[in-house]
Amino acid sequence: MTLAGKFIVIEGLEGAGKSSAIESIGECLRRNGIGFVNTREPGGTAMAEQLRDMIKHGFEGEMPSTASEVLMMYAARCQLVEQVIRPSLKQGDWVIGDRHDLSSRAYQGGGRGIALQELDTIRQFAIGNFEPDLTVYLDIDPSLGLSRARSRGSLDRIEQQQLDFFERARVVYLDAVASNPKVVKVDASLDMRAVQEQIITEVQTFIDQN
Amino acid sequence: MTLAGKFIVIEGLEGAGKSSAIESIGECLRRNGIGFVNTREPGGTAMAEQLRDMIKHGFEGEMPSTASEVLMMYAARCQLVEQVIRPSLKQGDWVIGDRHDLSSRAYQGGGRGIALQELDTIRQFAIGNFEPDLTVYLDIDPSLGLSRARSRGSLDRIEQQQLDFFERARVVYLDAVASNPKVVKVDASLDMRAVQEQIITEVQTFIDQN
Repeated sequence: MTLAGKFIVIEGLEGAGKSSAIESIGECLRRNGIGFVNTREPGGTAMAEQLRDMIKHGFEGEMPSTASEVLMMYAARCQLVEQVIRPSLKQGDWVIGDRHDLSSRAYQGGGRGIALQELDTIRQFAIGNFEPDLTVYLDIDPSLGLSRARSRGSLDRIEQQQLDFFERARVVYLDAVASNPKVVKVDASLDMRAVQEQIITEVQTFIDQN
Repeated sequence: MTLAGKFIVIEGLEGAGKSSAIESIGECLRRNGIGFVNTREPGGTAMAEQLRDMIKHGFEGEMPSTASEVLMMYAARCQLVEQVIRPSLKQGDWVIGDRHDLSSRAYQGGGRGIALQELDTIRQFAIGNFEPDLTVYLDIDPSLGLSRARSRGSLDRIEQQQLDFFERARVVYLDAVASNPKVVKVDASLDMRAVQEQIITEVQTFIDQN
């Protein structure tokens, strides 16, 4: 069935400014009189948040293997899509997602080197053809992003990866921008006000077209 | 590399007598001077046990979808194989597994109707070509097994499925016996002593050949 609401996702490396972007998009939707809910991934349901914690910090000292990390990530995504995102869209709310499937492609695919085709198969199993209506990718040089992220506090297991991990993740993000018209790139290296203006322009254009 | 130990798995529907069979196999290995460890699935590591709990009972009132159940099951299996089963086999211990991949094929494949080919893809991603050296399948009519299982106490989310769920699971088990020489069937409808004798015979034959 057709979903009445729209699913907008914010993507980007650590320190790209996702939190501020999510705030700006929320304000933009409010100004347009559009009701929305916020989600984050992995997470967003009780079970998915527990999986998030296991992915990010391990469990009782045990760390997940790369394959387990991927499988738990998609289990969490499946729960979130079925329990929160789809029901919200069906009743006409929009959803602003802090990360979605493209993060898995960038981090587990690009970063950890899992073949994107394998991820496609698992995504298909977990959520079928479900995808965001608009993805705003905040592009930033990983070294700049990481220095921003480090200045705001301690980093989790994935955020502690080496610089080349994030360089590989960025390649996947940029490939998505080049190949998928539903993924738009914003230059996140500019000052915050210029970044927010770009984001608002993209989102307002999307709203006007829908 | 070649693994020095052997991986023996017990499979069967609820009430087939897996616990007693696991005891008998342990005694048989001890009599033959073979060191071993016991595992159960899903479970067997801290993270896998947490996943088991979420699969069997949900989490804070939230139940996993069928796809999430499968993904968490394979995440747990991946952790168990990498952290416990392979290391044990490498150092020469045998492993007696209370369920393994065939349970997912029977319950999620047969029972819940997920295509076995899809499960194959996910298994390949999670554990590659890893498989038991011997699987002892305890065959029982589901109605007999369930009446035995009910007499010993309360049933979990999966054990509470309808009879036809278990009938479909049994078909997958019997297909495995017919197609894979590493899966042997034991008639678990007989009295306990006769069942144990069949199991010991199968395991002793396997030991003598290895």
